[in-house]
Amino acid sequence: MSRASGIPVPTIKFYLREGLLPAGELTSPNQARYGEAHLRRLHLVRALTDIGGLPLASVGKVVAAVEDREQPVHELLGAAARTVDLALADPVDSDSAVRSRAAAMADELIARRGWKVGTRHRAVEALTAAMASFLAVGHGDYLDHLDEFAAAAERVAAADLDFVARRRRPEELVERVVVGTVLGDAMLAAMRRLAQVDASARRYDPEDPEPLEAPENSPGSSSG
Amino acid sequence: MSRASGIPVPTIKFYLREGLLPAGELTSPNQARYGEAHLRRLHLVRALTDIGGLPLASVGKVVAAVEDREQPVHELLGAAARTVDLALADPVDSDSAVRSRAAAMADELIARRGWKVGTRHRAVEALTAAMASFLAVGHGDYLDHLDEFAAAAERVAAADLDFVARRRRPEELVERVVVGTVLGDAMLAAMRRLAQVDASARRYDPEDPEPLEAPENSPGSSSG
Repeated sequence: MSRASGIPVPTIKFYLREGLLPAGELTSPNQARYGEAHLRRLHLVRALTDIGGLPLASVGKVVAAVEDREQPVHELLGAAARTVDLALADPVDSDSAVRSRAAAMADELIARRGWKVGTRHRAVEALTAAMASFLAVGHGDYLDHLDEFAAAAERVAAADLDFVARRRRPEELVERVVVGTVLGDAMLAAMRRLAQVDASARRYDPEDPEPLEAPENSPGSSSG
Repeated sequence: MSRASGIPVPTIKFYLREGLLPAGELTSPNQARYGEAHLRRLHLVRALTDIGGLPLASVGKVVAAVEDREQPVHELLGAAARTVDLALADPVDSDSAVRSRAAAMADELIARRGWKVGTRHRAVEALTAAMASFLAVGHGDYLDHLDEFAAAAERVAAADLDFVARRRRPEELVERVVVGTVLGDAMLAAMRRLAQVDASARRYDPEDPEPLEAPENSPGSSSG
């Protein structure tokens, strides 16, 4: 199983001891046989711990959800997505008026895009926190671009679902949600940076630079 | 200045002591006048520390770059972007063959999109690391969607540049790059989750669920 999965034997033994991986079929007193299903479970547990960064106690809950065959797929994917941490951007103080305004804007966006999501979803809270921060630091005009962000997010999410739906086993679906969300966020952030560099290079061509404002009103120059 | 900026007096005094904010014009022995330029600098320093999470030593370097009026805008924006931390996704072991394959795919993507970026950019490294992780955990088919991610990233970056370019002062440009990148990443990640929920709800309609695979080959059911 270690050879087939590329996962070291001590790690596999640890998962077995923790009950995250069921025992194989005993073929002799110190030899057990493991099948495809064990391999799938092994990949899921590794994805949850190594990539999702989940504590072992939480991995057990996800495994239990995977084993609950009564659970509709949509619910299972939602449970998987909730295991992936989502940073709440709220580094700046914002008063309740700003928070209310951001929450209203988030609700309007969700209604406008026709997204079928509960308003109590943690991602709504994260979205509201980011929007409130933009407002609180005086850059509320960034939110003029909400729908461009939403269109980009929809495009990525459609790709995400295509990726997930190429598998049929619950373990694989959950594994793909976790891997795709965590590594996909990192990939998207990196690509956004590269596309920014490109957009900046085109707009502020070094061969033909747009001049900046004159420096006379700068605190740096007045102190020099 | 505290009233105009919403930033507490002790914080302003601290920035003055640290040399991040030049002294105002003395109007009496214990009274100084501050202008618009100080306010702009104050907002920049706050954005770098509170939102960018930058240590004070690095804030000083950014302030020096802002004061260097010889610097082309594109270079200044690049310097600003580099202050924002970019997580390197590399939680899984990947051998050098996998890394090389990922690096080649990243180069091809950049060439295909016509992105004007140096290959030594940290974001290329971050992109390569994320792609190598997908390959290493056996989900390389996620990378079939690279161009959908790239198109989404371009759309977001165009909005980012529009947002930045609405300002002309170097302090404001740098502040906007930092605020837009950090809070924008959080906003985009939150929207991606919401769009995933929506796409999942549409694909796996709870009223008419797609059946999962039969459970007989599951390690969970065989141990029960």
